[in-house]
Amino acid sequence: MALKAKVLYDFTAEPGNNELSVTEGETLTITNQNIGGGWIEAQNSRGELGLVPEDYIEFTKAIPSFPAAGTTAPTPSVGNVAHSEIQSLFDAYAPASVPAQNQASNGNDPWSVWNSDPSGGSNSNWASNPEGTQTGKSAADPWASVSHGHPQAYQGPGAEDDEWDDEWDEMKSGGYTESETGDGGAMQRGGAHATSMKISLNKFPGFSKSGPELYLLCKQTAKGKDKLSIYMGEVGPVWSYPETQLDCVVADPKKGSKMYGLKSYIEYQVTPNTTNRPVNHRYKHFDWLYERLLDKFGSAIPIPSLPDKQVTGRFEEEFIKMRMERLQGWMTRMCRHPVVSDSEVFQLFLTYKDEKDWKMGKRKAEKDETVGVMIFTTIEPEAPDMDLVEVEQKCEQFSRFTKAMDDGVKEILTVGHEHWKRCTGPLPKEYQRIGKAFQNLSSVFTSSGYQGESTLTDALTAAGKTYEEIAQLVAEQPKKDLHFLMETNNEYKGLLGCFPDTIGVHKAAIDKVKEGDKLVATSKITPQDKVTMAKRVGTMSYALQAEMNHFHSNRIYDYNRVMQLYLEEQVKFYETIAAKLRQAHSQFATM
Amino acid sequence: MALKAKVLYDFTAEPGNNELSVTEGETLTITNQNIGGGWIEAQNSRGELGLVPEDYIEFTKAIPSFPAAGTTAPTPSVGNVAHSEIQSLFDAYAPASVPAQNQASNGNDPWSVWNSDPSGGSNSNWASNPEGTQTGKSAADPWASVSHGHPQAYQGPGAEDDEWDDEWDEMKSGGYTESETGDGGAMQRGGAHATSMKISLNKFPGFSKSGPELYLLCKQTAKGKDKLSIYMGEVGPVWSYPETQLDCVVADPKKGSKMYGLKSYIEYQVTPNTTNRPVNHRYKHFDWLYERLLDKFGSAIPIPSLPDKQVTGRFEEEFIKMRMERLQGWMTRMCRHPVVSDSEVFQLFLTYKDEKDWKMGKRKAEKDETVGVMIFTTIEPEAPDMDLVEVEQKCEQFSRFTKAMDDGVKEILTVGHEHWKRCTGPLPKEYQRIGKAFQNLSSVFTSSGYQGESTLTDALTAAGKTYEEIAQLVAEQPKKDLHFLMETNNEYKGLLGCFPDTIGVHKAAIDKVKEGDKLVATSKITPQDKVTMAKRVGTMSYALQAEMNHFHSNRIYDYNRVMQLYLEEQVKFYETIAAKLRQAHSQFATM
Repeated sequence: MALKAKVLYDFTAEPGNNELSVTEGETLTITNQNIGGGWIEAQNSRGELGLVPEDYIEFTKAIPSFPAAGTTAPTPSVGNVAHSEIQSLFDAYAPASVPAQNQASNGNDPWSVWNSDPSGGSNSNWASNPEGTQTGKSAADPWASVSHGHPQAYQGPGAEDDEWDDEWDEMKSGGYTESETGDGGAMQRGGAHATSMKISLNKFPGFSKSGPELYLLCKQTAKGKDKLSIYMGEVGPVWSYPETQLDCVVADPKKGSKMYGLKSYIEYQVTPNTTNRPVNHRYKHFDWLYERLLDKFGSAIPIPSLPDKQVTGRFEEEFIKMRMERLQGWMTRMCRHPVVSDSEVFQLFLTYKDEKDWKMGKRKAEKDETVGVMIFTTIEPEAPDMDLVEVEQKCEQFSRFTKAMDDGVKEILTVGHEHWKRCTGPLPKEYQRIGKAFQNLSSVFTSSGYQGESTLTDALTAAGKTYEEIAQLVAEQPKKDLHFLMETNNEYKGLLGCFPDTIGVHKAAIDKVKEGDKLVATSKITPQDKVTMAKRVGTMSYALQAEMNHFHSNRIYDYNRVMQLYLEEQVKFYETIAAKLRQAHSQFATM
Repeated sequence: MALKAKVLYDFTAEPGNNELSVTEGETLTITNQNIGGGWIEAQNSRGELGLVPEDYIEFTKAIPSFPAAGTTAPTPSVGNVAHSEIQSLFDAYAPASVPAQNQASNGNDPWSVWNSDPSGGSNSNWASNPEGTQTGKSAADPWASVSHGHPQAYQGPGAEDDEWDDEWDEMKSGGYTESETGDGGAMQRGGAHATSMKISLNKFPGFSKSGPELYLLCKQTAKGKDKLSIYMGEVGPVWSYPETQLDCVVADPKKGSKMYGLKSYIEYQVTPNTTNRPVNHRYKHFDWLYERLLDKFGSAIPIPSLPDKQVTGRFEEEFIKMRMERLQGWMTRMCRHPVVSDSEVFQLFLTYKDEKDWKMGKRKAEKDETVGVMIFTTIEPEAPDMDLVEVEQKCEQFSRFTKAMDDGVKEILTVGHEHWKRCTGPLPKEYQRIGKAFQNLSSVFTSSGYQGESTLTDALTAAGKTYEEIAQLVAEQPKKDLHFLMETNNEYKGLLGCFPDTIGVHKAAIDKVKEGDKLVATSKITPQDKVTMAKRVGTMSYALQAEMNHFHSNRIYDYNRVMQLYLEEQVKFYETIAAKLRQAHSQFATM
């Protein structure tokens, strides 16, 4: 007897991808359980055959259901979408059992709303909308979700599934099994989601095992070549910048396929300006790089999330183009960062020679132990020790600034999103109707049979056509200017979303140092430890200041550039319309 | 014991006019019943004293209620608002008793929807919204009602009541008492409203008494000096045009008052280019002129309605300005018409010497018997007799054209109204929000304390302010261009609304002539009568053709002019914005 399954959620197939669209409640006949990658092959009642994400169905025979269902697929890995999704489904359907996220540990964090947002990749938002697979997302409006802070829910494993399952498993087996929320109390990124998203914990080995005291009290052991210098520049503490800035081009997306052509993926060509030799990477590889950078630098340097794993589907080409543009933006930002761009793992990503080189480098990076707060062991400020009061003031100042900027950026995104909708929707429609109304009147006039009518009607028709052209100009304009303004602000929204975590590490460290006397009194630490801690929190502050100065300098550059571009294009836009109207005007006879 | 009254409808006082705002259900104490003009003086519960329209209240003691209430005020006259309003209240509250307007007599009229619209003055729409005194009418959007064909309901006797009550009564006493709908069947203007608005009947003595056969079979008696010539011009039959075109300026509205200063009205100064001597006229006088012209020429020449008696109230100045502008438009159109401008009554209106001269002229005009279809007795085409087939073809052609143009004009009004709303509402609001968002971000940036920040923030603030300026430009633009486009189309809508009646007379005449043989056979007319009728329907056709040619020539001129003005202002608008943005752009540093 054939194996049957019931569909739990609607799923829309990506065209040309051998997938099968299914509807909640539908019954399928399973034809192949051994596809792997979270997919099964099934047939619907109309006899149509195709791939369906196995998390979207529930077997109605023999096969055990979730959570044990995980065992029927290849063992889920950290990078495997299916596994986390199972977890997220649990969350969505048992809200009462999920601890109130971000509340217990967020007392001193004014941005608590965010903490579910800037998590690595796009995992933490999965639970928020497990069924919203197609809700109003349109390629013409890429910010439909942006301004609401709800990246589109994951639609089902699309072009990005994992060929590295085995490797991910390896990594995972060396991970952590505890579900504690960490001691520091400020590391919400992993901690706050401990119950709802165990996987996240594995991403932050340094964070979840302990708070900033791991660094504050450790024996510093960073090797010479890993040292990160901080100098006193004109604007204050600054990272050490390279003489020539690293840059790279992300281009030429190509479709590849695997599983005997059953599944496809997109590979991007990444060419650094140092070697000028292209390397190929899939989204998954970028995601891996992101995880490594976050692990290693996240306590000192805000590492912005990768572009969301967006809805794929009807507008595949536009989606690929958009993702590439955003990966380019992300890579450019990483290249511009003196610490990130100089790191071994980032260099590996850009310049690996062959498969073997890549795999070796990857394993080494995954074994890197200077991660989490331990990154501060490598930082050497060439500056006098800092007073705790000043450390705290700086920290507060950056916290206030980034929060305020986040509000400002979100305001622009909201307003820009509204404007985008108007410019691509009702406004051009209105200009079109004006154009049509002129032309209609003109054709009525033409029917008058009155002598000399054409002097008016030719001009009136031309004016009507001009307004139709204006309609098109209006509709196309946002792609030429607002798009970049939105992209820049969207990027900054992501970047600013990382600051609460980064600043949280600093606040936790400051709190620890403030407890110094008490800890000495209760013999938890020695008086020497207390001195060390005070010195180290100063080192952390220099790192934060260097990072803020880096941020400010980039911000000024970015906003200057994007505003110039925006205004330039706006000027062109209005001038083009004026010229068209002047031309239309000239066609009317002077009477 | 004081006389009390209950308020039936909300009424908003016109400021500075001794009126009292009252609310439905409120109880008032009557302090003076003998004010007259449809007003009573009353005091509210807060002790405030003022004038209230008596139709808005219901006496709770002794005084009989409507319709007998009319007897407590000076005898209502044709021009007296209160009387008609009583009628309209009846209609509104007894809809079942009102005959379905425009249905019985409109069989051969494709524009039946309109026939309640272009009635003389603004009387016929009163019944449509007796309570809608303040519904969404705003001075900033003068077309709020235009595109829906519902002039705002009458709000209460405002600046326009009547000092000529006695004279109107005189005229009325010589009027017609029958309530028949006319024989012709095509003269819906008066006829269709017979039951709901008896007053209208009195305006169409020629129409209501008989159909076009009155002319077709009459003995022509027009005197030499009244003859209206039609020549064959390049474009076909044309009226005889004067060498210099009459023109006039309507200006300088001044508030006058009467009833011992209790009530006020507006007087406009009208100065013709022939005498260059100003005469004063109130709206009521224009309305009288309109009635005379309609009576005299309406069968041959579409006489557009005067601007509606709009809502007065909060925006009195704007209202007066708008009404003046529209009276100017109406007068200009009348001046431009060779037949109308040359008529005795029109000349009287523009050039009366003194009160006595005016009164004498007025009485003479009111006694004019060459009205209705009899106007055709004065028309002498210098052209060969016309074939009935051709007469009918021309008539059909003009009917089609004016109907089609009416559709086109209404489309522009609808679209323009939408555009007006967008340009004065959501669009500038959006630009303002964009401007604010830029400025907010700029002020966040200013707080960074980072060196060299002001290069960016000064420019960003300026850009923000520029968008606020653009918001204002956008909001103010419609008054500079769309306004005139709308006014012109609105005027044409009114003018086109008269064609069904004018063309209807011709159609009825054609039908009569077609019946010729039958009428001869049944001895209703002589064979000679039949020949005369055929010749006279040709004369009517020449008049219609001359009128259409006049219409076409004016139309081409008007649309050419208004389109040029519109496009010119649009060009300026877009150029101004482009220049402002270019200036904003230049403030950003080149990096």
